[in-house]
Order: sequence, then structure tokens, then C-alpha cells
Amino acid sequence: MEKHALLYEGKAKQLYTVDHPNMLWVQYKDVLTAFNGEKQEQLLGKAQLNNDISSLLFQQLSMENIPNHFIRRLSETEQLVQKTTIIPLEVVVRNVAAGSLAKRLGLDEGEPLKQTIVETYYKDDALGDPLINDDHIRLLELVSEERLLTMKRLALDVNHLLIKHFNICNLKLVDFKLEFGINPEGMLVVSDEISPDTCRLWDLDTNEKLDKDVFREGTGSIGEAYQTILSRLKGAVEKGI
Amino acid sequence: MEKHALLYEGKAKQLYTVDHPNMLWVQYKDVLTAFNGEKQEQLLGKAQLNNDISSLLFQQLSMENIPNHFIRRLSETEQLVQKTTIIPLEVVVRNVAAGSLAKRLGLDEGEPLKQTIVETYYKDDALGDPLINDDHIRLLELVSEERLLTMKRLALDVNHLLIKHFNICNLKLVDFKLEFGINPEGMLVVSDEISPDTCRLWDLDTNEKLDKDVFREGTGSIGEAYQTILSRLKGAVEKGI
Ligand SMILES: Nc1ncnc2c1ncn2[C@@H]1O[C@H](COP(=O)(O)OP(=O)(O)OP(=O)(O)O)[C@@H](O)[C@H]1O
Ligand SMILES: Nc1ncnc2c1ncn2[C@@H]1O[C@H](COP(=O)(O)OP(=O)(O)OP(=O)(O)O)[C@@H](O)[C@H]1O
Ligand SMILES: [Mg+2]
Ligand SMILES: [Mg+2]
Repeated sequence: MEKHALLYEGKAKQLYTVDHPNMLWVQYKDVLTAFNGEKQEQLLGKAQLNNDISSLLFQQLSMENIPNHFIRRLSETEQLVQKTTIIPLEVVVRNVAAGSLAKRLGLDEGEPLKQTIVETYYKDDALGDPLINDDHIRLLELVSEERLLTMKRLALDVNHLLIKHFNICNLKLVDFKLEFGINPEGMLVVSDEISPDTCRLWDLDTNEKLDKDVFREGTGSIGEAYQTILSRLKGAVEKGI
Repeated sequence: MEKHALLYEGKAKQLYTVDHPNMLWVQYKDVLTAFNGEKQEQLLGKAQLNNDISSLLFQQLSMENIPNHFIRRLSETEQLVQKTTIIPLEVVVRNVAAGSLAKRLGLDEGEPLKQTIVETYYKDDALGDPLINDDHIRLLELVSEERLLTMKRLALDVNHLLIKHFNICNLKLVDFKLEFGINPEGMLVVSDEISPDTCRLWDLDTNEKLDKDVFREGTGSIGEAYQTILSRLKGAVEKGI
């Protein structure tokens, strides 16, 4: 397998074409960004951490038969995925109040939610990725009614799976964001990445933040936090869980 | 009928108790506010205009058997309504892109919407009345599942009715906000007011704005705009429509 043309460069990853037209070569970057790109920093080793973490988590999804784009890890910082047409929606699932939900509803950060919350954000940097509802999605024709339902159901399935898996790692899954795409066979699959860039993860005992909030809030070492996540995930794999 | 204690004073109306425990006396105020109270102005005659417009529109609702709080107009600036427990949700219905929808989705103001949009906002001044979705409503337990469905259906019925009625008045109903309450019999009823404070209304031919946006944007005379709405509504009544 060889990588060819650069197809797209985002803030955290580069996508390259490969010989096979249905696949993409993902190169993770040593870059951290937050607040829609306003805060940006180089972080050596971050590409490897997120590539490894995302690979391990997508393997968990595959083991539980949740359709996803992941094919295989190619190197320390690269992976092979199915080429998809990304649906311009970010699906956020929340178990504990934090971030914009705490602000929107006036909740205290850390408050467990009696009811799992699913939110949809319009993936549009120029508009600041606004929260939207089902009527907005219909108006913009972002995705069919049926696929939207499937996306929400899959997001809840992923939540279920990840809560359990992170719990083994002594981590609390506060919330996370998923992207979905349509693969070349026309199937809806979880795409993009699942990493501490896209999940809020707290130590189960101390509530210490071990995710991108460390960078957003400028508290502590982001490299150490992500390394903790990776080590614990690897520990779970070694225990054969 | 006599008014007794002041029960509540909002930005646009005062609510008084009356002898009958199931009723409230509403006194409209000569005050205009926008941007969550940040912009405020005295406007002589505004109380009368909104009291008259709202009375006429609630009578239309009653004629079409849409459950609502309106009992009768008491004077130029006062009306009698059923006392309700207000559900802390603002239900917004939109036919044409304007205001926060245009901004949120990057649409041009005035663009007709292929799909009627219903939005729910959490009625909380301190939080700035944020847009929320059904999961947020469930989490905060703002209203039961069944009543939420009924509210949305009623809001669409009101939209249907008002579009038709304003069309007779050569007015385009761009969008509007409804509040709902539970009356003493436990029934869900449209409450609050329906006026150019709570609707966007444009002249059908010229698209001239004849609602609170004239005040928000500081263009033209708000008194004249509201008077135009009232005159046209009265014209429709006189034609027996
Ligand atoms: N399997 C896939 N097929 C096609 N595109 C994908 C796939 N997985 C992820 N992408 C897209 O790759 C892009 C690059 O990822 P990256 O995280 O760097 O983007 P970003 O900086 O978050 O910007 P944005 O998501 O706004 O484009 C994203 O647009 C993402 O949606
Ligand atoms: N039938 C009713 N029974 C009880 N309360 C009502 C009824 N109709 C309207 N209200 C309430 O009367 C209050 C006064 O109205 P007004 O428009 O002045 O309030 P406001 O300034 O918009 O503030 P807010 O709506 O945030 O309280 C509102 O809170 C409204 O929800
Ligand atoms: Mg991204
Ligand atoms: Mg009001």
C-alpha cells in the first residue's frame, strides 16, 4: 500500500488517496487546536497518541459489530480507512454535564445526567458548528430521516460500548462527538476519529481531566493526559478485555 | 370585575389577580424591549396596539377551536385571561428565513423555507433563552412527552391559521413565538400574547417590516408599523372574514 495525492488537510489529520479507490490513508498530525481553530499548538507525539487511541477504539466498535470506516493501523501515526462521504453533522452524546451543555442549560460541570443527551451540530466552521434540531436537518437536507434515526441509535450504541470499555480503564466517559459517513457500498459508518480530542474523559476516582479540556483550559500536560488514556486502553487489551 | 394584587410584572405586561381564582387581568405596558431587555424604550400607545392586536388574533384562534387562555378584552389596554402555569418553553414557528435562524444556518433573510421549522427555546432570561432540543426538554423535565407533541402540533395549527388570516391583511407571516400554559382544568392552552412583538410580519408586496425588528434595527416608526397591522386586522374583521 502506498499513499498518493493529498486529498484533504484538516486541523488534526491529512487524508491521502491510495491505489484502492474505496480507501483513504489517514496521517495524524502533531497539532492541537481548540475553539474552532483559534487556539493552536504543536505537540510532538500527539499524532501517535491519537492514531493509537483511535485505532484501539475503532477495533472495539468492530468487535461489537458497529459499522465503521476503520480498516487497519498502518504505522505509528497512520491508518487506513474506508473512503466515505462525510455527513455534515456532528453527533454529540453526553452522560455528564460539561462544556457547552453546562453553559446552555445552567448545569454544574460534573453533574451526572438522569437522561442521556444526544445533540446534533451542523458541521460548518464558518457558522461555528451551531446546535441544530431535526427540522433544521430536514430543511438543509443534510441526511435522510431514516439515516438520522440510525445515526442517533448508533451513537447511543457506541456510548453504551465506550462507557463499559472506559470503565475498565478507570475512566469516566463524560461526552463525545461522532462523525458519520456513507461508504462506497452506500452504508452508513462511524468515521473520523475517536480520541481525547473528541471525547471528554475523566479519571473515575479523582475526576481529573484527561482530554482536550486540559489544552482548552491550559491546565497541566496534554501529552501526559493522552498518554494516560493510551496506557490504560492498552492495559485493558492486554488483560484480554 | 375588579383587579386586585399585582401578581407578576414582565417587560411588556402586568398580571393582576381578580375575584375569580382561575382568571388574570392583563395590563399591557407602553414599553418596548429587545435583546433580552438590553434595549428598552417608552412608546405611548403601544399597550393599546398590542392589546387590540393580540385580542383580535386570540379571537381567531378561538373561532378555529384552538385552545387558548383568552377570555375577553376589558379596555383599551387590558384583557382578561385564564390563569395558567406557563411552560418554560418558547415555541417558535418559521416560514421564511430571518433573525437567529438566518444567522444560525447561514441563510439569506427573506429566503422562503421549503420546510416549516419548529424550534423550542428554554424560557430562561439568565441563560439568554437558548435553543434546546427534545432531549434537553426531557432532561430538564420542562413538559411531558405527550404535551410537547401537542404543543408542536398546536403551533403548526396556529401557523396555518395565522398565515391565512394575515394573507387576507396583505401581510406575510415570517415567524412567530408562542407560549403555552396549563389552565386550572389541566388543559394545555396557548397563552401570553400574539402581536408584532412576538411575530415577524412583512408587507406582502414590498416586504416592508412591520414588527419589532423595526425597533431592533432602529429603522422607521414602530408606532406606525404596529398601527398598520392593527388597521389591516380590523379591516379583515369588518369585511367579515
Ligand atoms: N473515512 C473518511 N472519509 C472521508 N473523510 C473523512 C473520513 N474520516 C474523517 N474524514 C474527514 O477528514 C477531515 C480531516 O480531519 P480533521 O479532524 O483534521 O478535520 P478538522 O480539522 O476537524 O476539520 P473539519 O472536520 O471541519 O473538516 C474531516 O473533515 C473529517 O470529516
Ligand atoms: N394566562 C397566563 N397565565 C399566567 N401567566 C401568563 C399568562 N399569559 C402570559 N403569562 C406570563 O406573563 C408574564 C408577563 O408577560 P411579559 O411579556 O411582560 O413578560 P416578559 O417580559 O416577556 O418576561 P418573561 O416572559 O421572561 O417572564 C410572562 O412571564 C408570561 O409568560
Ligand atoms: Mg476533526
Ligand atoms: Mg413576553
